[in-house]
Amino acid sequence: MKSSVWHPNTQMKEWSTFDKITNAKGVWLIDSKGHKMIDAVASMWCNVWGHSNPQLVKAITNQSKKLQHSSMFNITNEPAEKLADSLVKMSPGMHKVFFSDNGSSAMEIAIKIALQYWKNKGIEKTEIATVENGYHGDTFGAMAVGYVPEFFGKFKKQLFKTIQFQVPKKYKLPKGVTISDYQNQCLEKIENKFSKNKNIAAFVMESGAQVAGGVIIYPKGFQNKISQLCKKYDVLFVLDEIATGFGRLGSMTQYEEQKSIPDIVAYGKMLTGGYLTMAATLANKKVYDSFSGEFNDWKHLFHGHTYTGNPLAAAVANENIKMYQKNNLIKKIQKTSKIFEKYYNEISEIDIVGDIRHKGMLMGIELVTDRKKKTPIHPKKSINKIFYEEGKKNGIYLRTLGNIVMLVPPLAISEKELDMLLKRTIKTIQGAKSQVI
Amino acid sequence: MKSSVWHPNTQMKEWSTFDKITNAKGVWLIDSKGHKMIDAVASMWCNVWGHSNPQLVKAITNQSKKLQHSSMFNITNEPAEKLADSLVKMSPGMHKVFFSDNGSSAMEIAIKIALQYWKNKGIEKTEIATVENGYHGDTFGAMAVGYVPEFFGKFKKQLFKTIQFQVPKKYKLPKGVTISDYQNQCLEKIENKFSKNKNIAAFVMESGAQVAGGVIIYPKGFQNKISQLCKKYDVLFVLDEIATGFGRLGSMTQYEEQKSIPDIVAYGKMLTGGYLTMAATLANKKVYDSFSGEFNDWKHLFHGHTYTGNPLAAAVANENIKMYQKNNLIKKIQKTSKIFEKYYNEISEIDIVGDIRHKGMLMGIELVTDRKKKTPIHPKKSINKIFYEEGKKNGIYLRTLGNIVMLVPPLAISEKELDMLLKRTIKTIQGAKSQVI
Repeated sequence: MKSSVWHPNTQMKEWSTFDKITNAKGVWLIDSKGHKMIDAVASMWCNVWGHSNPQLVKAITNQSKKLQHSSMFNITNEPAEKLADSLVKMSPGMHKVFFSDNGSSAMEIAIKIALQYWKNKGIEKTEIATVENGYHGDTFGAMAVGYVPEFFGKFKKQLFKTIQFQVPKKYKLPKGVTISDYQNQCLEKIENKFSKNKNIAAFVMESGAQVAGGVIIYPKGFQNKISQLCKKYDVLFVLDEIATGFGRLGSMTQYEEQKSIPDIVAYGKMLTGGYLTMAATLANKKVYDSFSGEFNDWKHLFHGHTYTGNPLAAAVANENIKMYQKNNLIKKIQKTSKIFEKYYNEISEIDIVGDIRHKGMLMGIELVTDRKKKTPIHPKKSINKIFYEEGKKNGIYLRTLGNIVMLVPPLAISEKELDMLLKRTIKTIQGAKSQVI
Repeated sequence: MKSSVWHPNTQMKEWSTFDKITNAKGVWLIDSKGHKMIDAVASMWCNVWGHSNPQLVKAITNQSKKLQHSSMFNITNEPAEKLADSLVKMSPGMHKVFFSDNGSSAMEIAIKIALQYWKNKGIEKTEIATVENGYHGDTFGAMAVGYVPEFFGKFKKQLFKTIQFQVPKKYKLPKGVTISDYQNQCLEKIENKFSKNKNIAAFVMESGAQVAGGVIIYPKGFQNKISQLCKKYDVLFVLDEIATGFGRLGSMTQYEEQKSIPDIVAYGKMLTGGYLTMAATLANKKVYDSFSGEFNDWKHLFHGHTYTGNPLAAAVANENIKMYQKNNLIKKIQKTSKIFEKYYNEISEIDIVGDIRHKGMLMGIELVTDRKKKTPIHPKKSINKIFYEEGKKNGIYLRTLGNIVMLVPPLAISEKELDMLLKRTIKTIQGAKSQVI
């Protein structure tokens, strides 16, 4: 098969062909040869109810007969209005919703809102504070605030500079330091900088955990303390819940669990249940009100995409949110996710497993060649391809992240299916072992 | 109605409420009160066949029952493969397709590909050349290459610098200079710079015309000459056909009409017929091949969005492209667009009309208070709101661009409908006159 597709984040030379998914049902992906795989990464961390969910499909087909698209420039539409209301309702402290098409764009909007807020107030604050290993998308603004050298080094010259702070990582603590000490050191550095630099417009971070940055789950209190420092030093607090909200880590909004109400927050991925692309940036009243003025004050936000507030995407998002409530999904996630714990020991016993990090419906299994030195596995071929192929043999669809095997299943996965997925994951790691060390 | 929506590019204080579109059919938008308006801007320049087209709706409903979403990370899906093949086929010189979710992202990808191409070749070229009034979207990379001071001045500090060249504008020629002289001057400046600065990685411009920058239609030969200069001086030529391709200016690809084959080109807006958001960045073989290597060479592109290659969006795009061929849409556009010409005189006679610019299914009517001085109208209220309200009275949905009334109808609009739209537009300008001078 000669294909014309350039795949994302892929060394194309490694792949002579890609398996073609032709249909999917529940947690199962089915390819053109009839092979079935459990969707272990929720089709890149977005699927909620499994594939081909009848209610979500119905929401799409119903809306597609009424209004496929109508713009948000000068006019509005019912599904987008309803969705905005629901998002504000589920997001304590938030006031208005700015729609966009993907998570990167939602974060670009968040950054623009934060920077313009100070311009609109007539106060000079132009720098953005971030944390290491942060990831907020692949567009230039998103790359700048989530700068990961291996990913974005080639574009460094084009990225605006940020002030980057450290995040306490339990697995990689400096020698002789406890996690609590390290956390305090990190927070002190932030406060120290905040107290000296009055030019910081916003602090941007993922909420609850860093996912693409290596499944770094924040220790308790870390996010809350940062939110307090932001208040104390008049820095806008911007949270990215694109991968971590909507139940992924076990709460509808991570920021409520972390007791850290932001000024601006972004959602994406799971917003539509994982069927259509859509994202949203929410702001509180204080921030929103600063954009109000006479037209010729030019205080309004210059941002807008063609498909902003698309009724089809909004309709399926509305059905998705309704189903969260109706099925009490958050409670179900909290219960189902305990299944992961049952397998901690068995996974740890595999000698290339260096660390397991888990919260809610997210697990990262870090693979090393040397447990003491914590040396990441580093085969010649991409780890990702090795694990995809081995996973496929065991009937699971995997997409690893560097040396980390990611389990990010559809949120509504059953206990039985999750059991099966974990067993197959263990088999996959054991099977791939000889190829990666 | 208290709404939670923050509208794009809108001073929210001006709008106490927004009309709610509840359904739409053909060129007609229908609001919750039953009012009907002709969609004069194709729901932000993207609608092709009108609303609720049965074949496009069927493409969505059919695909929604099979596979709603599956990722392009390690795997692929049928609609995306088919779409990539079609896009390569319709795009002379192009080799591979990188999918994304909106035009801004597609242009960010184009810039990243262009910059990394030189890195991969081991050649130091890091600057981007652009043209004034360019517009490529609202994310940081897109803002940098399409910098319009009024739009993006607040974020200037965060935008990477580009080398900006002038575009010959017939309506605003320097005194005593012909358009042909002016064009030659513009091109000389480009060649002069190219010959001295060997650090220019790419030249980025909209193909055929600048739309958001004020409906600036390039004089004949301009784009072709730039493409030649790019070849001569080994600069990648990057074209943005998001608003101008797919028939908007009367050709399937503008770059073919302009005899200017690019190295990289982006499509968006009309790709799905205007129903779902999706965009694509295409590259030629020379560019694509530079990304090939061993995995650990890290030559591959670090870019990917969750919904890259979404099967639902791809399915409707496939049906859309099939319909272009089946209905010979490009020929139809060329014929229908002659209707615009019939009204040149009548529009010009309105004394606030300074200039009319028209190509294919795009018309910009520039409004001035003084025809000699060409002073743009500049009322206290936004021009946009005044024209929306006046247009609504006359049953047309307008979204102006500064002092320019835009006519960007669904591409398959009938001659009769376009006649009606133009008559109503004239009435609207006459009706709004007293409010804008």
